[in-house]
Amino acid sequence: MAFLVFEGLDGSGKSSLMRALEKELERRAISFHRTREPGGTPLGDEIREMILRTQGPSPLPRTELLLYVASRAQHVEEVIRPKLQQNHWILCDRFAASSVAFQGGGRDISETDVVTLNNFATGGLKADLTILLDLSVEESRKRRQGRGEKNGESEDRIESEADTFHEKVRQSFLKQAKQDPQGWLVLDARETPEGLYLQLLNALQERGILK
Amino acid sequence: MAFLVFEGLDGSGKSSLMRALEKELERRAISFHRTREPGGTPLGDEIREMILRTQGPSPLPRTELLLYVASRAQHVEEVIRPKLQQNHWILCDRFAASSVAFQGGGRDISETDVVTLNNFATGGLKADLTILLDLSVEESRKRRQGRGEKNGESEDRIESEADTFHEKVRQSFLKQAKQDPQGWLVLDARETPEGLYLQLLNALQERGILK
Repeated sequence: MAFLVFEGLDGSGKSSLMRALEKELERRAISFHRTREPGGTPLGDEIREMILRTQGPSPLPRTELLLYVASRAQHVEEVIRPKLQQNHWILCDRFAASSVAFQGGGRDISETDVVTLNNFATGGLKADLTILLDLSVEESRKRRQGRGEKNGESEDRIESEADTFHEKVRQSFLKQAKQDPQGWLVLDARETPEGLYLQLLNALQERGILK
Repeated sequence: MAFLVFEGLDGSGKSSLMRALEKELERRAISFHRTREPGGTPLGDEIREMILRTQGPSPLPRTELLLYVASRAQHVEEVIRPKLQQNHWILCDRFAASSVAFQGGGRDISETDVVTLNNFATGGLKADLTILLDLSVEESRKRRQGRGEKNGESEDRIESEADTFHEKVRQSFLKQAKQDPQGWLVLDARETPEGLYLQLLNALQERGILK
């Protein structure tokens, strides 16, 4: 049983890396649940829509943080804790570190306040390992645009923030990883999918999370 | 300019007392804005629906508190502070004290946590006077039922909580008022509308809020 979180700018390859690990867990008959934030529950998905939509009333920065954290509180209590208690692995696309990076780093809300709110929402639950797929803002934008053209999807409200915002988000992720080297694995998102996957497997084995 | 908050169990007569004060403010040509929580903004009204509806996914206690507080953060920054800066009075149906009473008292969430979240949402903004219309749980239920029969409205998710819940809410309001006698005015909601209104006017004049 392990709680793994995947973080990084949009387009950094979180989904592909999660899928690669899922295949390995299936091969080993390890039960897992894949989820994401904001969202992960029916109520959380409604909150997600409220945060990310580009039409309709938008949350101001403090409201935005409180909505992310509300979605997280519901997610932890309704899904993550019960699944972990049933001995399932959790693979989560974004978690508490994203609030530190996007609302603390990006929106300049005090990091202490973000951490206090995260702790209230999670009841102190921490990821066993947070995997950061580090990517430059420029490359992230290119990849998002490529994806948008392919799928006809337009950017959400957070994605459409300026490059200076995303640069602060990236730097916050790197800072968080540096402060807790045992809890974080930093990967260079420009590497090949195979290379990223092998580094992840190695890290899980080195830390005794996977045998 | 003054920020007045009206608190009390449902059916305690907050709306009637607010209307009586509004007439006096109109007579004196004092600008005011009447508002309520949860809600008070377009986004807040969406959050209100999410909290109070009896159909669809319901928030767990911590999520519920975070949603109230998210609505409050938006309300303070988008409406209350700007109106006060324009020298308008604010008459608000429920505010921070309701979270202490309903989620702290009623849901047994640590009062310290509720106060921390309130302070984050309000940026420290406090009411100049909080008027508590104190009513027994039994009388509140009778009045709500009478109103429901008259309007064909059914109870919302909070109203439909057990009497033990509402008793804890009532006791929390009384405790908050006792801890801050200068900031609170406690009225016996069984008195006549005229009697309540006169006591409110006296209190506003005694405190120098109204001349």
